[in-house]
Amino acid sequence: LARLLTEKREELASSHGLQWRVTGIHTRRHGSIIDPEGIDLALALRRMDGGQSLESPSSAAAPADGPAFIRACKGDVLFENTPVNYESGQPAVDHLRTALQCDMHAITANKGPVVHAYVELSQLAARRNLRFLFESAVMDGAPIFSLWRETLPAAVLQSFRGILNSTTNLMLTLMESGDSFEQAIARAQALGIAETDPGGDISGMDSAVKVAALVTVLMGFPFKPHQVERMGIESIPAEEVRSALGRGRRWKLICQAQRAGSEVTAFVRPEQVDVSDPLYSVMGTSSAVTFHSDVLESLTLVEGNPGPDTTAYGLLADLLRAVALRG
Amino acid sequence: LARLLTEKREELASSHGLQWRVTGIHTRRHGSIIDPEGIDLALALRRMDGGQSLESPSSAAAPADGPAFIRACKGDVLFENTPVNYESGQPAVDHLRTALQCDMHAITANKGPVVHAYVELSQLAARRNLRFLFESAVMDGAPIFSLWRETLPAAVLQSFRGILNSTTNLMLTLMESGDSFEQAIARAQALGIAETDPGGDISGMDSAVKVAALVTVLMGFPFKPHQVERMGIESIPAEEVRSALGRGRRWKLICQAQRAGSEVTAFVRPEQVDVSDPLYSVMGTSSAVTFHSDVLESLTLVEGNPGPDTTAYGLLADLLRAVALRG
Repeated sequence: LARLLTEKREELASSHGLQWRVTGIHTRRHGSIIDPEGIDLALALRRMDGGQSLESPSSAAAPADGPAFIRACKGDVLFENTPVNYESGQPAVDHLRTALQCDMHAITANKGPVVHAYVELSQLAARRNLRFLFESAVMDGAPIFSLWRETLPAAVLQSFRGILNSTTNLMLTLMESGDSFEQAIARAQALGIAETDPGGDISGMDSAVKVAALVTVLMGFPFKPHQVERMGIESIPAEEVRSALGRGRRWKLICQAQRAGSEVTAFVRPEQVDVSDPLYSVMGTSSAVTFHSDVLESLTLVEGNPGPDTTAYGLLADLLRAVALRG
Repeated sequence: LARLLTEKREELASSHGLQWRVTGIHTRRHGSIIDPEGIDLALALRRMDGGQSLESPSSAAAPADGPAFIRACKGDVLFENTPVNYESGQPAVDHLRTALQCDMHAITANKGPVVHAYVELSQLAARRNLRFLFESAVMDGAPIFSLWRETLPAAVLQSFRGILNSTTNLMLTLMESGDSFEQAIARAQALGIAETDPGGDISGMDSAVKVAALVTVLMGFPFKPHQVERMGIESIPAEEVRSALGRGRRWKLICQAQRAGSEVTAFVRPEQVDVSDPLYSVMGTSSAVTFHSDVLESLTLVEGNPGPDTTAYGLLADLLRAVALRG
């Protein structure tokens, strides 16, 4: 995000009337700095890339506590990017709440607060004429939330079906090419896709949290991850993945949700799809969702080859939405 | 559109604060009526479905000339849905210009005026604080234009590639299943997909006009259909379509455009795609476009099984954008 903001500085000023400075950076491993006059981002990036702390002997001390840091920052916008906490959404929920209470727009790439505090944070933001935005929380920077909020007025989402977890989709692709389950994990980790503990991906929990976020926001139906019926990919041997491909089928970790009367039911589970299914060609780290609504029978969004850059773009897009200075 | 407006009447009022009445209907074969108090749409639909004229002995005479009719209507919004004119965009351009001059928002499902008068009509609309909108002109009701206008701020479109013509894609699907070229045309006509003269579809002209519309609007680069290098599907025998499928490949009428320095180059031509291509699974009347931008490497929008209902939804969505009363 720091690099993207820097690269787009002139374009944001000329085409969007947006000038910015970064007044605070709070990290887990590289210290914290606050400078109301604007932090030198190029210098900060060099320090981070060099494994150094952002703090220098001359810089003022910044609070180590997240909420205290946010209160001390006096910015207009908070970008909250802590790792996801499936159970409680913390500490992201506290960070975002604090930002809104301090008159800052609250933007996050973290899906935890979406499933654990969407209604509270959205209402708090609305009361204070601020925005709580989280485009990067699902499908990286692909505009899955703003597609519904901005481009499909008066459409009612009936169901959706997709592939929302990059690690498991990459693993299935690698197993098709000959990797064992363990080799696929190791390769996904080496590529920086899977975390040190990929358990949340493999068990389908990461997908379930994303499904709950989409149901909560796009269907207007508060939904928790434990309400998503869930099965991971542990039970699919690599030989079965290759054998299915020989039969013209691919195993995919499918996410699905549908309205059923006044309820919503949802699941995450491995399924075999054939070539007639748009999800068949979603390979590697790509992701996709097909939406079925009362006005459009089928609308599919596919994001190919996402990465940290696309997540950063989602945050930037949220910034432009929040400040509403778009050209 | 009349049916959709009627079905959604209560939802539009309660969720979007929008109440509406139709003050005029102008048709090619069923006459024209004007009633400032509001036309009975249910009655009008019954007359149309019964092959009758909309006019009755008691109704006031409405001008037969398009622009004169629009001036006489005194509406807030014009929905312009004449058939496309590839060469000049007329009479749609005159209709839309007249509407804007009469302080009406100008909404169309016709791609002709987009390629022939986008800059003029957009500027005229902006000067008068009105909107010129055309979501249904490409990919029916799928939000291809508003995806870019509303959800991808500060993104620069570098290139796109897709399938934009339903008739030829359906024909290729039918030929894969055993139809001859002529049988495929006849079947597409019987299904109401192909027009009596499907020449514009088969020659790639319909696709070229859509490519020109996307380049003009999404790349901000005024482009005319004749600038699109064009080859239709006439030259692909049905046997070759089936033989390619046996080799794991599908013939598709591919639309593509890319920036090249300060220029844009574009083509429409049949190509064979394999299963790794997201366009491989786009079958029948479905359509799809993959966008490559400076911030998202690959974002694909697929519309499955479109029809008149989805075109109507695009018009309704444009109405809600124009009056900006969204909930």
